[in-house]
Amino acid sequence: MKLGRTAVPTPDGEQLRLVSVDTAAGRVVDLARAYALTLARRGAEPDRATAISRTVFPSSMSAAIGSGDLFLDAAHQALEAGDDASQSIDEVSWRAAVDSPVIRDGLTFETHIQNFHRVVAKTQPARSLYERPGYFKGTTAKSYGHDQVLPYPDYTDALDWELEIGYVVGRSGSDLTPDNSLDHLFGITIFNDLSARDVQGAEMAIGMGPQKCKDFGYVIGPWITTMDEIASIEGLVGQVRVNGDVVSDTKVENFVYTPAELLAYVSIADRLQPGDIIGSGTMGFGAGVEIGRFLQPGDVLELELEGVGTLRTPVSTEREKAPWWPTPRPYPHEEWSL
Amino acid sequence: MKLGRTAVPTPDGEQLRLVSVDTAAGRVVDLARAYALTLARRGAEPDRATAISRTVFPSSMSAAIGSGDLFLDAAHQALEAGDDASQSIDEVSWRAAVDSPVIRDGLTFETHIQNFHRVVAKTQPARSLYERPGYFKGTTAKSYGHDQVLPYPDYTDALDWELEIGYVVGRSGSDLTPDNSLDHLFGITIFNDLSARDVQGAEMAIGMGPQKCKDFGYVIGPWITTMDEIASIEGLVGQVRVNGDVVSDTKVENFVYTPAELLAYVSIADRLQPGDIIGSGTMGFGAGVEIGRFLQPGDVLELELEGVGTLRTPVSTEREKAPWWPTPRPYPHEEWSL
Repeated sequence: MKLGRTAVPTPDGEQLRLVSVDTAAGRVVDLARAYALTLARRGAEPDRATAISRTVFPSSMSAAIGSGDLFLDAAHQALEAGDDASQSIDEVSWRAAVDSPVIRDGLTFETHIQNFHRVVAKTQPARSLYERPGYFKGTTAKSYGHDQVLPYPDYTDALDWELEIGYVVGRSGSDLTPDNSLDHLFGITIFNDLSARDVQGAEMAIGMGPQKCKDFGYVIGPWITTMDEIASIEGLVGQVRVNGDVVSDTKVENFVYTPAELLAYVSIADRLQPGDIIGSGTMGFGAGVEIGRFLQPGDVLELELEGVGTLRTPVSTEREKAPWWPTPRPYPHEEWSL
Repeated sequence: MKLGRTAVPTPDGEQLRLVSVDTAAGRVVDLARAYALTLARRGAEPDRATAISRTVFPSSMSAAIGSGDLFLDAAHQALEAGDDASQSIDEVSWRAAVDSPVIRDGLTFETHIQNFHRVVAKTQPARSLYERPGYFKGTTAKSYGHDQVLPYPDYTDALDWELEIGYVVGRSGSDLTPDNSLDHLFGITIFNDLSARDVQGAEMAIGMGPQKCKDFGYVIGPWITTMDEIASIEGLVGQVRVNGDVVSDTKVENFVYTPAELLAYVSIADRLQPGDIIGSGTMGFGAGVEIGRFLQPGDVLELELEGVGTLRTPVSTEREKAPWWPTPRPYPHEEWSL
């Protein structure tokens, strides 16, 4: 099943709705509405049907995923009344497919590791990257869905994309192993780890991970494909298009650490939660910096991943300028001894 | 006002309750219960009083803070019936004072920057740290409250604490400036950014920020003190005790970047959300590594901060061992050219 989130106007303001997507028919089913209709056909009073349905299919994808097997069971039952609660895929306003409690992003593809270190980090990849799967944590406050306009932060002249598989966690878990970690995987989506390359180097020097080079947000979607539709993550092909031109073809291959190992490692001492996104790391040549191209205001970016679909991001034509930026302090450690 | 979270048993399992704390009287008031009593005295039917009260004072401190002025107004009204909904401060089970949407942690005290780089990083502090306030993002899946036992991760022999001010966000905001950012501050708490020092160096080399050196959790509490009780953050004194022995005395001083600058910087392009924690960074000599001492199984740590109180953490007597750890790969870049 393919599951996403759309926005609809209501008297109380914009409301997010969980939908299932039939890409072949070009139709989207509002799950809460369809499930209420299904419950009503089975004898529920309308107000009870709506109350139960909105609890099972709330606005939060993470909350819904957290319901365990009930979620997909109810989604399949909802589709019995799907035709009466559907609309064209072209008519909906998408939002980030999932509201993750925590966003983590790995670095597991050898080709990208090499390209990134040659061009951005300008240093040999750390040995530590081959002793464990490296990952950082991102803000969850700024996520975008399919076709949502991305503001262009004024502080960068090197706005870049990263085509990644977003592993969406299904069940809580700590201290998992590669033998059982994929049981905690709900599905995959496309995860665009946007990056300001001209800010990234200075921030990496601090050693605390990305700040303003990534904080302006992630694009997540267009929807989540559940694992029963994915025969193998390895081998999925991807493509990057800018303004309709193909700028990169890539493939899920050449893992330093596999998805099962990445999920297990992340869970050690920490805890995976339903709806968490764990980015795979950029697929080989999946970022603009690897092919010498950045996004300009007004560009339209498309990231395609086999088994999921195409995640389109129009970039704002205007740049967005923050009113303040920190003033450098005098550097007090010109002379330094251990 | 001092506001925290406690856990109580119910027929549906453990439930978290918001409480206000009167440290002088040694009493804790259950806000939802007290507010329901206040509403009932003003004519509300009991079931409506409870329903409204539980919505205004839910289990989530972040949700409550997100109610804006209503939260503290209702809390003050609740105290009208406080005596009928209070218990001794010694009888309650504490949980992390706030369930933060995002946990970020800065590095803003010059003394700790110097000590940390001498002992852990073993390198000159990056120039970048004096061009912007550095910070990382942490997992929100593992937080502990006052007096909760901390599991001792088996993968470290250098379990350390960090005494920090936790800035608790009150109102959403993006692109703030130092002139207005403190308007978005709800209160302060004690934030213990636990660290496995023997893991930290290898992870810093990757440049993606802390992973297993911090992922095992944060201690947050014992409660939040609202800003009306804090005349000045600068100048607050702190103390660290291990098994009752004073091992460090410290003070909020010698900022590289002020709290107002740190909050404003974090908000650029990103978005602060109610309940977010932004750690100040470790106060000078506020970590064990700065004084040559780590935590052992069975130790009891106490972090005290003027204006807040004492955050006590008993360390488990047993070590907790994950069943799996990644196997190093052959390092493929012995020969490397740009």
